Parts: sequence; structure tokens; C-alpha cells
Amino acid sequence: MSKKIVIIGSGAAGMSAASAARAADPEADITVFTEDRDVAYSPCMIPWVLEGKSTWNEMIMHDPAWYAKERNIKIITETKVESVVNDTPRGAPAVRTVTAGGKTYEYDSLVLATGGKVFIPPIEGTQLPGVFTVRTVKGGQEIEAYLKKSQKVAVAGAGVIGLELALALVNIGKDVTVIEMMDQVIPRIADKDMADPMQAYLESKGVKFMMRTPVQGVIGKDKVEAVNAGGTEVPCDMVIFATGVRANTDIAKELGLDIGQLGALCAAPTLQAYKRGRLCPDIFVCGDVLQCQSAVYPGPTMSQLGSSAVKEGRVAGANAAGAKLEFGPVASPWVSVIGEKQIAGTGMSLGLASWYGVETATGKAAGLTRARYYPGAKELVVKVIADRKTHRLIGAQIIAGEEATGRIDWLTSAILGGITAEEFLVRSENAYCPPTSQVRDVVFAAVEDLVKNL
Amino acid sequence: MSKKIVIIGSGAAGMSAASAARAADPEADITVFTEDRDVAYSPCMIPWVLEGKSTWNEMIMHDPAWYAKERNIKIITETKVESVVNDTPRGAPAVRTVTAGGKTYEYDSLVLATGGKVFIPPIEGTQLPGVFTVRTVKGGQEIEAYLKKSQKVAVAGAGVIGLELALALVNIGKDVTVIEMMDQVIPRIADKDMADPMQAYLESKGVKFMMRTPVQGVIGKDKVEAVNAGGTEVPCDMVIFATGVRANTDIAKELGLDIGQLGALCAAPTLQAYKRGRLCPDIFVCGDVLQCQSAVYPGPTMSQLGSSAVKEGRVAGANAAGAKLEFGPVASPWVSVIGEKQIAGTGMSLGLASWYGVETATGKAAGLTRARYYPGAKELVVKVIADRKTHRLIGAQIIAGEEATGRIDWLTSAILGGITAEEFLVRSENAYCPPTSQVRDVVFAAVEDLVKNL
Repeated sequence: MSKKIVIIGSGAAGMSAASAARAADPEADITVFTEDRDVAYSPCMIPWVLEGKSTWNEMIMHDPAWYAKERNIKIITETKVESVVNDTPRGAPAVRTVTAGGKTYEYDSLVLATGGKVFIPPIEGTQLPGVFTVRTVKGGQEIEAYLKKSQKVAVAGAGVIGLELALALVNIGKDVTVIEMMDQVIPRIADKDMADPMQAYLESKGVKFMMRTPVQGVIGKDKVEAVNAGGTEVPCDMVIFATGVRANTDIAKELGLDIGQLGALCAAPTLQAYKRGRLCPDIFVCGDVLQCQSAVYPGPTMSQLGSSAVKEGRVAGANAAGAKLEFGPVASPWVSVIGEKQIAGTGMSLGLASWYGVETATGKAAGLTRARYYPGAKELVVKVIADRKTHRLIGAQIIAGEEATGRIDWLTSAILGGITAEEFLVRSENAYCPPTSQVRDVVFAAVEDLVKNL
Repeated sequence: MSKKIVIIGSGAAGMSAASAARAADPEADITVFTEDRDVAYSPCMIPWVLEGKSTWNEMIMHDPAWYAKERNIKIITETKVESVVNDTPRGAPAVRTVTAGGKTYEYDSLVLATGGKVFIPPIEGTQLPGVFTVRTVKGGQEIEAYLKKSQKVAVAGAGVIGLELALALVNIGKDVTVIEMMDQVIPRIADKDMADPMQAYLESKGVKFMMRTPVQGVIGKDKVEAVNAGGTEVPCDMVIFATGVRANTDIAKELGLDIGQLGALCAAPTLQAYKRGRLCPDIFVCGDVLQCQSAVYPGPTMSQLGSSAVKEGRVAGANAAGAKLEFGPVASPWVSVIGEKQIAGTGMSLGLASWYGVETATGKAAGLTRARYYPGAKELVVKVIADRKTHRLIGAQIIAGEEATGRIDWLTSAILGGITAEEFLVRSENAYCPPTSQVRDVVFAAVEDLVKNL
């Protein structure tokens, strides 16, 4: 009899798990449950579609019919999972069922890819028409429709999604104010000296900012009319919350699975869940609901990125089908394109390092993306961070006019390799051709500066 | 008394050594001897200047006057070093002198950055007007002048410089034929399946190729009139040799320094030369004259790249001034931009692996540089090579419409980290944003394919 695999969640993690399970077991009976209407898309794409650089149809890679036909994967959309049972009593048959849409389904392996919920602060008015989050195609289409009758938009939260969204909306002629509680944009994962130039750039493009300002309420009678930003009433037609994501652990809690220190699901390197410290052989976890192991600190971290979700999903899905893959500690590289600029990072920011109590040293260098004698070279600023005690590289951030991604992936590889700043100078090389790089990349200059400061 | 440092050679290695020596010792007396007229430029830039994308003035970063004023480095140009003495007899004072331009100079540390000579096959006619190499600004300017009265150009050698040059000349309206002895372009460092699409692309742009064809003679009375290409007389006005570089060991031989198996200078990780197996405390080596240690094979390799020269120069120069830096084994990443395409590589090609007797397995994947739902995504083909016995990653090659460099630097970091293909899948991450990358980079798909083939 073929193995029954049930996956809850159809985001990047869930759909990667489904495809990986299929690749690992051509016979398995694979079912995905999702509350979403659409599957197989990247929510990171929503700002660009709102700006008109792509379309909703283009950003959705496949629909459930495609998965049924091409991969023999059954997807049950717009359906909430009502309950999950995982009883494996000693000496008695296991009871493993999922109930959804009034029906009950048996499973042999369960993959929890329940994702995250956008955190909306517990304030008044958030139920009003005109309040949105950026998470699904459906939600994006609702924003698009509401934008037609809106001019002033408040974006709550200056993380990368908030910033990309703010610029996209300014680019289509809206009046946008970003409201951020902290004193810098991208506060969790970027350092202030790297974030401030991005804020200045966005301001030059017309995005307004209210910093050190909590959103304390949404104001309006039948719909959004203003937002209470730190006591100031800011008139607006819409409020979009881009205030971060919390792991959606509802089902996990119902199952009694172990929740980690950061409020997300604990899992072994095989991505099997735990129950009171014991591995669950038949429950796998991936995506925004998973608590990861940090590659730069002996402790937990969150890695709520699309790229992490896909990587985790492939491990969880394959293992749910019987494989023995492992998921390793994460540095969580990220990149954001904001107009003509790119900002990227990996490992710990100074803020996170300080939160973990890690003493740091930093190095920084500025230069160009290409040889300076080749036309079109763009700005490149590289910052690197080491643990002051061990000299290990633990983080890096880049601002660049182009090609930030490859450089941050390179630095991520070095960080995951566990090398010190001094070792980096010996054990790294860069390829050179005038139209693509400098003969000695700015990354080296930054690490050299770091070594001086250690 | 300040330390006397003499550097022979003003290429990327020599000038990096001079600057690094100055940074390490503000007091040292630093003199650079060079036969060249210009210093501080990248020969890789010559094709682009010939094409008109930059100028000779732009490609020269600094002149000797700048070095004298800004860095207190004396450069003696267009001067051949006639003899070098390094006698350190026991119990008697050392004699360490360089004689050049009729004068004799003492030194405490000597840096040999004597570079390479373009290999010109021992055939008839190579002394004729119209025969050139691509190595110096002066030589580039001579090519530029001669091009004014030339239409048909033969390029001998289909390495990356030959290909970049060929396309540059076609782009300014010349009739260009590349003559290559092997059966593929970029024969030493690229595999045939990656090289062939580049050749086809160049053919589509109008470059002609004669493959498996040795240049057997240059024909002409008072100047180049044709080239004998494997017995066929090919009429042409110019012949440009881009046939590789041989280490220039003349001075090293005079000094009795140890020459390695590949015909270049042996050196310790400190880049100190050897004499009959003993370290020379006061002679340092860098650039194209240096034989390196391979990072992917327990043996020697050549790394005649501008980026390697700079890295080596910084170690040799700093150590010549008293520092204790080390230069590590090399994977020698390279990249070449040819029209709208980029080709890059790192570590061993299959050809080199076969030469070294390493059994290999390969993986390959094709995809896009950006999310496929973001406009402007370009082709991306990634090939990875592992040692079949150890599963270690030993090489990679990329063809891409953009951003090959960062990816090859990333793979180089993994290769230098000594990890296996399986470990790469666990211990690598990529940053994602729709305009710069796919959520799961094609690099992962290539390594996954490799793991299947191991």
C-alpha cells in the first residue's frame, strides 16, 4: 500500500515538501491542505506586481490542476484543517488523522508547513476596511483593488517588505508614509550605518518616514481614515501592516509538539518534530513555523525567508517519504532590491549580536562593483562582522548598485565554513574581469579592515 | 636605517607588492624596476579599450609620479635588470644587489614579480611587422595603430583573452579568424560542453574559427600577409598571439632559485623562494612567475590571473617588509565577459582533472539568473565537478547572461572549504529576491544532479 503523506500549508515550504516527497517516492499518496486560494507563488513578488512589473498570473507558477496532472499531488485549497490526531500508544495501533472540510484523512507522515501570521499589534481599528497585510496573492489583489480609490497609504513596519512595498506604491503615484517603531529601517537584520543610506535613498524617491514611532491605532468610522502614529493622527486611506511574521503554531500546539525558545517549532536536523524531547518519527516541520539552529551562535534563530522555506521543504518532504536528508544550521542570507539599490545581509547584524550577548568587531570598505576603468561600475559598500573572541566571521552586509546577491552568497559560504577573518584572507579568491568585478573585490578590503580592528 | 626593498616587475603583482610593503613599513626604501613604460594597469582591459569602451588613459590607474608622491615608491621604468646578486656566505657579509641601467642598487628584501612572457610558437615569420601580443598598454597601442590599416586579423589561441579580443575586433568592423590547436575554445580551463555554446555565440556575432589547427608560420615579405594555419594559407594583415603565458624565470635562474615541476618558481606559503630546498629569507615571489599549490589536488598548479597576482603581491610585499602573511592553495576562479554572455570557472576543468589523473563525476543544471516571474531574467547554466572517490567539490563552470562572478566566487569558497557535494547541499544557502535570484539558485540544482551521479 502506498504511503500517505499529508502536508499542511501550501507556501514555499509546503509545495517544496510536496514535490520533494513525490521525487523521493513515485507511489506515495500526497495531499496538501491550504487555507489559501492559490499555491506555488512567492509572496516577495507582491510589491513588484502592485508596481506593474509583473502580473498575478505570472507570479503564480503552477495551479492545483498542474500539480494533480504533472506530479500527482492533490491540493485541497481554501480549506482549514480542523483537527489533527497523532496518537501512537504502545501496544495499540497508531491513530494518525487530519480532519478538514468535514472529512477525515489518514496519514503515515505529516508535514507541518503552517507558516507564519503577519503580526498585527493589538490596537484598535485593525478590523476596519482599508487595513491589509502582504502575504497572499488574494490579499495582494485586495490591496490592488483598494489602491484604485486610495491616495494616501501608511505602511507599518520598515522591514524589507515594507520598504519594497513603499517604493512600489510611490512609483505608481501614491503618497506613502512608512511608520517604524525603531530608529532605523530594516532594524532586525541590518545595521544602522547600512540602513540609513537606504532610508535616505527612499526619501529621495519620495517615501516619507516616521521613525521611533509605534502605530497605536487605526482610526475611521466605516473604513480607514487615519492612523495614530505615536500620538500623531496621520490621515490615510489604507494601512498596510508589514510588521513581521510570527510562527503559526496552532496545530502544533494541538498536537502537543515542543515549541522552542523563540516561539516556533523545535525540530531535529532531519526536520522531525519533538514531543517532550522525543523525536516524532512521522511529523516533519518546515517553513516559517520552524525554529532553526544558528550557524554563528550556539543557539536558536528564525529564518523566515522564501529561500530557507524551499530548502527546508525539500528536506522535510523527502524525509516524510522515507529519505534521510539533513537540514543544517543557517546564516539566512537575504537581499532586497530597492529601486537602483540592493541591500543584502547574512548571519548576525550588530543588533542581533548584542541581543545574543556576542562581542563583535567590524570592518567596512567602499568601492565599486566593476573595475573603475570599465564604464558602468556602481557603488559597493561591504561590512563584515566577527566574534571578537574567536575571530570567526558571523555576519556581513552589502549595499550595491548591482550584484549584491552573489557576494552575500560567497560570504555566507565562508561563514557556514566557520572560518575566521584572518582565514578568510588566505582562503578566499575572487574572479576578475573588468566588466564584472574589481581585480581585488571590496569584500577583501572589508575583511582586511576587520582584521585590523580585531 | 630604513629597509631597502627592491621589486622587479610592475604588473599587478609587483605594484601590489610595492603598496603592501609601504603599508607594512612606512619607512622602507622601495624601488620598482620594470621594462614596461606604464605601470598599474590591468592587461585584461586591453580588448575593451581597443573596442572603444574605455581609453588607455582611463585604464592606467596611476603613473610613477603618483606612486612617488602618494606612496613614496620609486619606479624605474623601461629599464632591464641586468644582474641580481644574492650571496649570503656563512661568516661573511651578505652581498645583495640589483644592477639595472648601469647602476647597482643594494637591497635587504627582493621581490620577484617578473611575470610571464606570451608564448609564441617557434615558427617562421613571427618577427614580421603585423605580429603582436596582448600584454602591455604599449603593445595595445601598437595594435590600435596597426588596426587602422588592417582589415583581416588572425588571432592565434582561443583562450579567454583571444575570444574577448576577437569579439572586440569584430565589433569595430574587422574580419577576425581565431585559430586554435585544440578542438574547443578555452581549452585548458573550460569543458567542451560549456565552451561550445560560447564558440557558437561568437560565430553568431561574426567571429570565424579554425579549430584543431596549429599556427605553423607567419607569411609575408616585409610585413604580415597571411598565416599558415595547419597547412592552409589564410590571408590576413595582422596576427595577434594569445597563446598563453610562460613564467619569466630568467632572473630566478641566474639566482639559482628552485624552479618547480610546471616551470615556474617554487615558493613557501610566505611566498619566500627556495634555493636547493632551503628557504631564501630575503627573496619573495609573486605573480605569473609563481607556481602555486592547488586547493583541489595535492600538487602544483599555475594561477596566472590578475586577481591571483594582486593577492600574491600583497603577501609578498608585506612579508618583504617584515610581515608574516600566508598565501594559501588556489582554486583560481576566472570570469570572461563575451558580448551579452559571461563564462566563469573555478578549480579543475575535466581536462585538467584528466591530466592530473583525478576520477570525476559531474552535475549540471540550467535555469535563470532571476525569478522567472520577474522581467529580464537571463540564462544560467551551472556545471559542478567532484572527485569521484572523495566526493569533494573540485571544480565548477558557469555560463550566464549576468551575475556569473558572484556565483563562481561562492562556489570557490565552498571548494576552498574542502566540502563534499553532499555537504554543499546542507552547508550552503542563497539569498533571494525576485529581481536578483531564484528562490533556490541553479547552483543547488547542479550540485543535486552531481550527488545523483556520484
